[in-house]
Amino acid sequence: MKISVAQINYHIGNFEGTLDKMLHAIQEAKDAGSDIVCFSELATVGYPARDFLEFDDFIKSAENTIARLCEASKDIAIVVGSPTRNPKPEGKDLFNSAYFLAEGEIKFVQHKTLLPTYDVFDEYRYFEPAKEWDIVTYKGKKIALTVCEDIWDVGTDNPLYNLNPMDKMMEFGPDFMINVSASPFTYDKAADRLKVIKANIDRYKVPMFYINHCGAQTELLFDGGSVVMAADGSFIEMPYFENCTQHFELEKILHGHFPSETQEKNKIKLIHDALVMGLKDYFGKLGFKKAILGLSGGIDSAVTAVLAVRALGAENVRVLLMPSQYSSDHSVDDAVSLATTLGIQYDIIAIKDMFESFMQKLDPLFDNLPFNVTEENLQARIRGMLNMAISNKFGNILLNTTNKSEMAVGYGTLYGDLCGGLSVLGDVYKTEVYELANFINKDEEVIPQNSITKPPSAELRPNQKDSDSLPDYDILDKILYLYVEKRTDPSDIIAAGFDEKLVRRVLKMVNINEFKRHQTAPVLRVSPKAFGMGRRMPIVAKYLN
Amino acid sequence: MKISVAQINYHIGNFEGTLDKMLHAIQEAKDAGSDIVCFSELATVGYPARDFLEFDDFIKSAENTIARLCEASKDIAIVVGSPTRNPKPEGKDLFNSAYFLAEGEIKFVQHKTLLPTYDVFDEYRYFEPAKEWDIVTYKGKKIALTVCEDIWDVGTDNPLYNLNPMDKMMEFGPDFMINVSASPFTYDKAADRLKVIKANIDRYKVPMFYINHCGAQTELLFDGGSVVMAADGSFIEMPYFENCTQHFELEKILHGHFPSETQEKNKIKLIHDALVMGLKDYFGKLGFKKAILGLSGGIDSAVTAVLAVRALGAENVRVLLMPSQYSSDHSVDDAVSLATTLGIQYDIIAIKDMFESFMQKLDPLFDNLPFNVTEENLQARIRGMLNMAISNKFGNILLNTTNKSEMAVGYGTLYGDLCGGLSVLGDVYKTEVYELANFINKDEEVIPQNSITKPPSAELRPNQKDSDSLPDYDILDKILYLYVEKRTDPSDIIAAGFDEKLVRRVLKMVNINEFKRHQTAPVLRVSPKAFGMGRRMPIVAKYLN
Repeated sequence: MKISVAQINYHIGNFEGTLDKMLHAIQEAKDAGSDIVCFSELATVGYPARDFLEFDDFIKSAENTIARLCEASKDIAIVVGSPTRNPKPEGKDLFNSAYFLAEGEIKFVQHKTLLPTYDVFDEYRYFEPAKEWDIVTYKGKKIALTVCEDIWDVGTDNPLYNLNPMDKMMEFGPDFMINVSASPFTYDKAADRLKVIKANIDRYKVPMFYINHCGAQTELLFDGGSVVMAADGSFIEMPYFENCTQHFELEKILHGHFPSETQEKNKIKLIHDALVMGLKDYFGKLGFKKAILGLSGGIDSAVTAVLAVRALGAENVRVLLMPSQYSSDHSVDDAVSLATTLGIQYDIIAIKDMFESFMQKLDPLFDNLPFNVTEENLQARIRGMLNMAISNKFGNILLNTTNKSEMAVGYGTLYGDLCGGLSVLGDVYKTEVYELANFINKDEEVIPQNSITKPPSAELRPNQKDSDSLPDYDILDKILYLYVEKRTDPSDIIAAGFDEKLVRRVLKMVNINEFKRHQTAPVLRVSPKAFGMGRRMPIVAKYLN
Repeated sequence: MKISVAQINYHIGNFEGTLDKMLHAIQEAKDAGSDIVCFSELATVGYPARDFLEFDDFIKSAENTIARLCEASKDIAIVVGSPTRNPKPEGKDLFNSAYFLAEGEIKFVQHKTLLPTYDVFDEYRYFEPAKEWDIVTYKGKKIALTVCEDIWDVGTDNPLYNLNPMDKMMEFGPDFMINVSASPFTYDKAADRLKVIKANIDRYKVPMFYINHCGAQTELLFDGGSVVMAADGSFIEMPYFENCTQHFELEKILHGHFPSETQEKNKIKLIHDALVMGLKDYFGKLGFKKAILGLSGGIDSAVTAVLAVRALGAENVRVLLMPSQYSSDHSVDDAVSLATTLGIQYDIIAIKDMFESFMQKLDPLFDNLPFNVTEENLQARIRGMLNMAISNKFGNILLNTTNKSEMAVGYGTLYGDLCGGLSVLGDVYKTEVYELANFINKDEEVIPQNSITKPPSAELRPNQKDSDSLPDYDILDKILYLYVEKRTDPSDIIAAGFDEKLVRRVLKMVNINEFKRHQTAPVLRVSPKAFGMGRRMPIVAKYLN
């Protein structure tokens, strides 16, 4: 028996497009002589389809895809994830299911048991958990089907659920397991995934075919990295960030003892590749080609511009250089130098005249109050407006260049530098942005070294430096990591050796700036705890502030 | 026996402030000679505390509140909602519980069974459902405790859950039920609530004390309206939007057959009062006093200004009139007239000079392309910037004046008229804004009649009318209602008698503008399906567009 694993980039709600991609992979699998071809979780609708799942018409379209796939299953079996209606009046209206299609019909359906409802996941919002379990027999082989989270509660001391569906399915003596997944990328996910698959193999002693999505869905990035693991732990890991279909001889997998094939797991390279994919798919799936961003001469916009060029091509990236009266000459020079190196279109617009035009009208209302954050924000907002004018006139999507450290403490101007359709670095701490810049420059100087080495500054008042209002990023990022990613108690952060006053100040900044994050662009998620759909905080609250 | 119902306005995470309010109500109850005082669901932490529930320090603070309430329970019993840690390693780490405190200690804890995880609710994200049920006996009375949703699955043909906790508790023969709730306002919620309580009474034949939150938590508005219902269906409904503690003789409730006391349920009045409370609490709980908004002479900003004055006082509301070169004189006149009537500070700033200052810089980049939405957006964004400048300089929160119809179809400029810290009318369709205006004007002309009767226009190009790019609001709003609130299939909307081309155009507008709604202010929620946390859509998708 031969089994194909189709690691595909889905497009939520694009039923025809998705079906075409599947039919293409099915043909590939047939050409390779496969008996079964496997797709991933909720492949028919894309993941996460979110509240579209509440529309009857949307579910009908998924059912239509299953019907079309049935037709394609006459000489090859198909394993595919799709929603199923719950026939009982009690409980949620849908199941999240793995389908086994063969000989032109639905042979078997196994619903998902463990419904992740934490971080970015909302599955219990839509789905009823399985309460019945079975396996399917095909060409003499007994196959257990599970869906993503179903395998993730094995091998932990603090299980999130009260049972493991594979424990039930083992009663039927399966020869191997197929897990259809939509498991989003984080920089440590690929390693975790191998551990979890290994924990299942250790417990159930049968091989697993694990099929993941590949491609970006707004915030969520799916890295592929599908895995086939034998009962002895030998495994083949498919490429990251690559749509591909691979074919496996079941006999080899059942026998095991083959040399494992794994992929490189360099954190910064993974983040780099994930962001490039995230950018590419955000534009491609929305039907846009061109990006605009403000290039300040600083490191964040420099890294964002490089990533955009790698995702969209130099011909599709345009930048504005918008010096204020407080900008240094070298900022413009560094930005011009980068734009020239990248071969992208750039324009220089000094913002002073527009700023003065505003101040002329506002001065009479300002009661002679001193220059403060108001005037700084005005300048940042003029830049946002200029970027948006190019966006509106030429159809370029504005890229937001704010990093995670700034997002966390609210160091950024709403409707100013926080403008943009997509936040590229919003889940990358400033210290990691430096690592990304060095990674980009590892073979040649793409980003001017000066952009990397000079002290960060918004250049919105004379001699301004980030360090005037923020702690050093190497300390700030460590505190933020403990609070945001690890949800460490304030007292424990202080006990870890950070200054108490500083810790309280940082945590307060994080909490009182929830209102800004509420209004910012979706953030490409690369960490286990990103700002966005996976971190849900009240705006009006009084905690640690 | 006497039972007090404390209908209180909580402040998420403000543990000391919340405890003070509770101790005050406990004293009131003691003064009234009560035996039991009841607070609402998760009262110790506020609702919804969202991901703060994942912080150990936050849960410790709730436990500390329970300990302090125990001390206060020496001569009165206290029923209160609070999170409880799950002692088992399996399952979620918390329960959502009703506590019964008496004689200085925790006498009984009943966990919530039915965890709403739909629309604005995320409870399965945090909580494990109860699997054990019991009742508490106090001063000879047997009392069943339930938590909010626990009573909402009774009397339906399509239950969302597989069991009803009261079915279990009835085995112990309770004399009455106490339900601690945090049930957010919608314009039809109060009527639904009475129906649901009645369905429980009909099924279980014992009286119910139902205690609700009262007050606004960012998007979610809690209207109070706590209810005490006898077994024969006679009931007392406490006031809406009012913090109050009322005391009930249990004998009277057990006997029943008293004249019911209900509250007025006028949809527009309810929406009006809810929005005023939402505004007031948003400012009060964030520690702000003053609002700023742009007054255009149109109906949306007029209604928003009136609501703001009613919530914050005329002395705390300031407006900017920002005519463009395309604004009609009467727009400024109408706005001045309203500002004068309301007695609020207003300034007039023509935006032409700033617009020209931008165009001078942008013209060389615009390749002689014709005037289009870019120039309209620029003007809207200049207004946004001017509002934000006042906001930053004087500490006024900018109110967003966009209505639900505009939010739905994306008729609004991101970083322009979509600016603001709070969206006041974002869940009120344009046709309902008219009803609100007429409600406000019912006794005297507060809003100039001209603002109500003139055709809506953004006045960003010559002779512009909303109807140039949008269908009439009375048709648009009906289509939007079917699609957004009712999630009706496109084919069924068309079958209901609307033009197919129009329906497809409107649905496409709704779906492709998800990116704008992602970046707008929190919306005060008054309908069963508001934009915001209760409607979660992918941004990158291809469905009905």
